[in-house]
Amino acid sequence: MEPTLITSRQNPRVKAAAALLDAKERKKTGLFLLEGARLCADAAENGVAVETLLVTPRAAEGYAPYYEAVRAAAEETFFIDETVAEKLSDTAASQHFFCVCRKRETPLAIDPAGFYLITDRVQNPDNLGALSRSAEAFGAAGLIVCGGCDIYSPKALRASMGALLRFPVYREADAAGVVETLTGRGMRVFAALLSDTARDVRAVSLTGGGALVIGNEGAGVSDAVAAKCTDHVIIPMAGRAESLNAAAAGAVLLWELWGRRSTIN
Amino acid sequence: MEPTLITSRQNPRVKAAAALLDAKERKKTGLFLLEGARLCADAAENGVAVETLLVTPRAAEGYAPYYEAVRAAAEETFFIDETVAEKLSDTAASQHFFCVCRKRETPLAIDPAGFYLITDRVQNPDNLGALSRSAEAFGAAGLIVCGGCDIYSPKALRASMGALLRFPVYREADAAGVVETLTGRGMRVFAALLSDTARDVRAVSLTGGGALVIGNEGAGVSDAVAAKCTDHVIIPMAGRAESLNAAAAGAVLLWELWGRRSTIN
Repeated sequence: MEPTLITSRQNPRVKAAAALLDAKERKKTGLFLLEGARLCADAAENGVAVETLLVTPRAAEGYAPYYEAVRAAAEETFFIDETVAEKLSDTAASQHFFCVCRKRETPLAIDPAGFYLITDRVQNPDNLGALSRSAEAFGAAGLIVCGGCDIYSPKALRASMGALLRFPVYREADAAGVVETLTGRGMRVFAALLSDTARDVRAVSLTGGGALVIGNEGAGVSDAVAAKCTDHVIIPMAGRAESLNAAAAGAVLLWELWGRRSTIN
Repeated sequence: MEPTLITSRQNPRVKAAAALLDAKERKKTGLFLLEGARLCADAAENGVAVETLLVTPRAAEGYAPYYEAVRAAAEETFFIDETVAEKLSDTAASQHFFCVCRKRETPLAIDPAGFYLITDRVQNPDNLGALSRSAEAFGAAGLIVCGGCDIYSPKALRASMGALLRFPVYREADAAGVVETLTGRGMRVFAALLSDTARDVRAVSLTGGGALVIGNEGAGVSDAVAAKCTDHVIIPMAGRAESLNAAAAGAVLLWELWGRRSTIN
């Protein structure tokens, strides 16, 4: 049976979905809005609860394999017209393919032999998304997001290319507490610090599990968190550069501490 | 003598400066607009021709050392009020400190013993900015930008934290031609490719100078450019990750091919 077609921007389901572009509404409802055929399929394939699929008939045809997968997972599916799609869209070139999903709350489960990325108030959604891609690509066991940008913001989800949906992601309020939990299990936790006392990352040799903390773009890792870490590391820099972009620094440190020596390939 | 105060958004200098937020106007005039005290000072200190400094009296006081440095370099200086500053601003929290500068056209000069980053149609200004920071930090000899995003876009300049002003940056139309120039001087040029035939970057050992090509976010390095490169490299990835963010991949490859083994520190 064909899904019902919604043509009004005032339709209650459409209004509720569009409201999720706002962080406050996401917080209140526990729901979030995903845009893009591939991202919606990533959600469906990874056990994210899909409440509503909203798609233009043309997008359903154009992205047929994704459409079938998401429709099978969704509680309900509606066709929408292009005016409605533009109301829901947060992008310049929309695929007209959306779903409303339920946020996951996964209790923190640590594998002491794994490697984790901990973000301490990383604010920029593009950075958070890029960091989650790097963590997944370099074989990290999970990402622990402490404060900062909402992982369910449309920008962060897009920048993650689905990693925030595929990959174990935990949200914790207290970064210092998370670091204590890990060190209490015998793991080394590395704070990325722009400090003279931090060790050159090339001199570090990690055996067993561990974690890396990347701090806020402006303020870095907070003192309280750094104090709980077992190691402070820095990437040596040449020239007049004073720092790297947070996502670039995170990628290099994840690579150097874990990905480079892990058994990938 | 105190600079003249401009209070009208219709002032011709203000209108001309605000027009530079548009890429077409930058192309037509050969000028660009910089925002932020530190960025303006980076321009002045690095020989960028500063035509006009536009700053609120309050910002001039608050950023006095930067103000003095930029004023000394600027052909003319005007005070502006906050309404005018908001018209010029491209940011959420403006410092009310701007200058109109002249673009540089630096003819390509290659040091065969150095390492270069070549961008092949990198589109996202945040990525281009982050890549320039990484290239500077890892001791590259210069950045060669071929197509893609305008290096004088306000976003790219901000994301570069001044690296695009401090660091040797060349704009060239023909990436394949640039690669040929470098290989013709005996340099190895590495294309970052997501291909089964690309070599694991960990297996590469570079002696002497070289270059890395980072491609467009969606399309990667173009076939015509890749065909001219001496090497194709890939960063091994685990899990279901299919790629990294372009700036993250660039940072890791710059680090692995050059920064990691160079004499920094």
